[in-house]
Amino acid sequence: MTRNLTTNVDRIGADIDALAAITEPGRPWTRRAFSPLFLEGRTWLTQAFAAAGFTTHIDAAGNLIGHRAGKKPGLGTIMLGSHSDTVPDGGRFDGIAGVIAALEVGRVLHEQGIELDHDLEIVDFLAEEVSIFGVSCIGSRGISGTRPAEWLGRTSDGLSLEKGIMDVGGQPDIDALRHDIKAFLELHIEQGPVLQDGQLDIGVVTAIAGITRIEIIVDGRADHAGTTPMGSRKDALTTAAWIALGVEQLGAALAQGETHFAATVGEFVMEPNAANVVPSRVRMLIDARAEDRADMERFIDELGKGIEGISQKTGVSVQPLRIISDNPPTPCDPDVLEVLDDACEVAGAQHRRMASGAGHDTAWMARITKAAMIFVPCRDGRSHSPDEYAETGDIALGAAVLLEAVKRLDQSLQETE
Amino acid sequence: MTRNLTTNVDRIGADIDALAAITEPGRPWTRRAFSPLFLEGRTWLTQAFAAAGFTTHIDAAGNLIGHRAGKKPGLGTIMLGSHSDTVPDGGRFDGIAGVIAALEVGRVLHEQGIELDHDLEIVDFLAEEVSIFGVSCIGSRGISGTRPAEWLGRTSDGLSLEKGIMDVGGQPDIDALRHDIKAFLELHIEQGPVLQDGQLDIGVVTAIAGITRIEIIVDGRADHAGTTPMGSRKDALTTAAWIALGVEQLGAALAQGETHFAATVGEFVMEPNAANVVPSRVRMLIDARAEDRADMERFIDELGKGIEGISQKTGVSVQPLRIISDNPPTPCDPDVLEVLDDACEVAGAQHRRMASGAGHDTAWMARITKAAMIFVPCRDGRSHSPDEYAETGDIALGAAVLLEAVKRLDQSLQETE
Repeated sequence: MTRNLTTNVDRIGADIDALAAITEPGRPWTRRAFSPLFLEGRTWLTQAFAAAGFTTHIDAAGNLIGHRAGKKPGLGTIMLGSHSDTVPDGGRFDGIAGVIAALEVGRVLHEQGIELDHDLEIVDFLAEEVSIFGVSCIGSRGISGTRPAEWLGRTSDGLSLEKGIMDVGGQPDIDALRHDIKAFLELHIEQGPVLQDGQLDIGVVTAIAGITRIEIIVDGRADHAGTTPMGSRKDALTTAAWIALGVEQLGAALAQGETHFAATVGEFVMEPNAANVVPSRVRMLIDARAEDRADMERFIDELGKGIEGISQKTGVSVQPLRIISDNPPTPCDPDVLEVLDDACEVAGAQHRRMASGAGHDTAWMARITKAAMIFVPCRDGRSHSPDEYAETGDIALGAAVLLEAVKRLDQSLQETE
Repeated sequence: MTRNLTTNVDRIGADIDALAAITEPGRPWTRRAFSPLFLEGRTWLTQAFAAAGFTTHIDAAGNLIGHRAGKKPGLGTIMLGSHSDTVPDGGRFDGIAGVIAALEVGRVLHEQGIELDHDLEIVDFLAEEVSIFGVSCIGSRGISGTRPAEWLGRTSDGLSLEKGIMDVGGQPDIDALRHDIKAFLELHIEQGPVLQDGQLDIGVVTAIAGITRIEIIVDGRADHAGTTPMGSRKDALTTAAWIALGVEQLGAALAQGETHFAATVGEFVMEPNAANVVPSRVRMLIDARAEDRADMERFIDELGKGIEGISQKTGVSVQPLRIISDNPPTPCDPDVLEVLDDACEVAGAQHRRMASGAGHDTAWMARITKAAMIFVPCRDGRSHSPDEYAETGDIALGAAVLLEAVKRLDQSLQETE
């Protein structure tokens, strides 16, 4: 398949480099939300949005928005974008790629003099990554009316989130919920190896997986490691080891299905962690992701049973599993998915449908509009790391898919209404 | 079997209570070596030793010694004792029981007007527990000429070990090695459940197990927990879990033999330990104890092979195992063991031979003399904990065994020479 590139690779590359370069010195690529560097990045973006023919403002939720009126006032808005904030160390493409792709779509439309019927907006959402306030997707939750009121009282180093939003130009006391957005599209790096392994250009994202976090605590008994016979122990570690292997086995079995599933023991802390003492306690935190809610329910059910069996076998107590958080999967809009498939064909992009294992602003935008997203490949699936890398050509092809999709949505959204 | 108690239970109980009461207030039972409380305990012991007819002094290694001359000058010394320093929180009987038992033996001989042919010494070794200087058995290593010269330069909070020894009254620049000790005996709580489980009074310790510490590092790869398919991961935790289970299995198999063996993963630290990241690295520290060196060699060998097999199966790298420390087992003196068996019979003590899984001053004394030790039961095997408990009656019976053994050694040591 030959790529039909309607976007400008060099320009996209230069933009990503310029924005990524706004980083903590000696700690690339770090531009944490609410930091002076973040505001510096926003200043750069504001100028770039304006140069592409957009009027700009910060909305009540703290999002940077570029607005371009359509030919038919009142038809509503097509919105594109992602986020410019980063995790510590690793944000060269995560978020940035999507913001710059949205900018490039606007820029091509502007320079080609193409006017849409709908209003077009490009957006840099505030604080998609887990921020200093311990929460994520602050901007997209604000604009979708799903930001819990109590979040505003969260503090970090004496700063409240309320004040943080005001400092970036938002108005936290005003309802930021939008009713005019008719479709939302986001480009993002995959953050996994599926596209690279399949030698594909684009993943058309069918759903954002639900995330469930489960805490498990194993209660053993601290004994002298030298004097306590092997048969007289209540070793929390070995019981926890069986559980960790059970989580992997169960996760792998569910991943065999047609929909995305993954389960990981991401946190594992042992006590007393002393060389000569039999481990007395292990706390584990499981991260499970499911595209299909039924998989998650089966996982939780079988995990509970499995732990009971392990505890009986080893004779070491395990507390009943505790669900810390539980978010259901968010399907993307089926009409928009078809538009994206077609746009991939026009752009000459090898594509497949796939779920997103990671959370994204799109999951919140899906609460208020027809939302969908596309993935571009990232090298070896690495992300949230200084090694994160995506080819500019792939991002440019993704932007071309978005451009084609926007043109098509500008028509199809009117037909369906 | 009827107990034939030649020692005074009430006196032993009162002594243990009095010494244990010299503890950090609100943190029983804590009397750390080199602390003011430790010196307070030493003052109490010095008075008690003197009241039992001993002349007292601090030797060059910092040990408190009570000396009572025998009838035959030049015959040499029979020494009894243990240590009065404690770990944080848990030293109500660990060490103390042995010091007070030695004191009681001297006291009974003194009040019964029994004079030995050999000189008799009772000792409170300096800093048996891992001290603020990060090393243990400082006094028994000094007296046995096995204290590394470089230890004196170790510091803690600006204090050198050299100065610490001087502060307790020792002379670190003088060689403390003794050549006159003909036998050494120590009573200690078992710190394990074997005697309690077997409803026994005394363990006659055949050997102090060798301790080998082995570090294992699993090198996985940090990936996004949501987006990385189950089959594309290098999860350090699950590979480490297989290894932890292998250590337990191998340890349990070797423990089936006639000699003591135990293996424990005491330290286990995972990185990055973040909820949504596949674990990239696990560091484990294995504590293995063997009465028979051949068991330890087999353990190290099979562990190495097992890890290789696990790494091949999971596809996750494991660094070659690294032996951090490796001390061989110390057999107790076979002649003294026979004397102790006989003394148990005379005292009416239900006894068995057993190895010590824990390290003790006796292991160092065995370098320079015929050394052996006995265990008394401790409740549920608990030790190094505020819950540590031993019955005064059991300690008194153990002291009676020591008393009988001392009388017998006073004769038998002359016969064998």
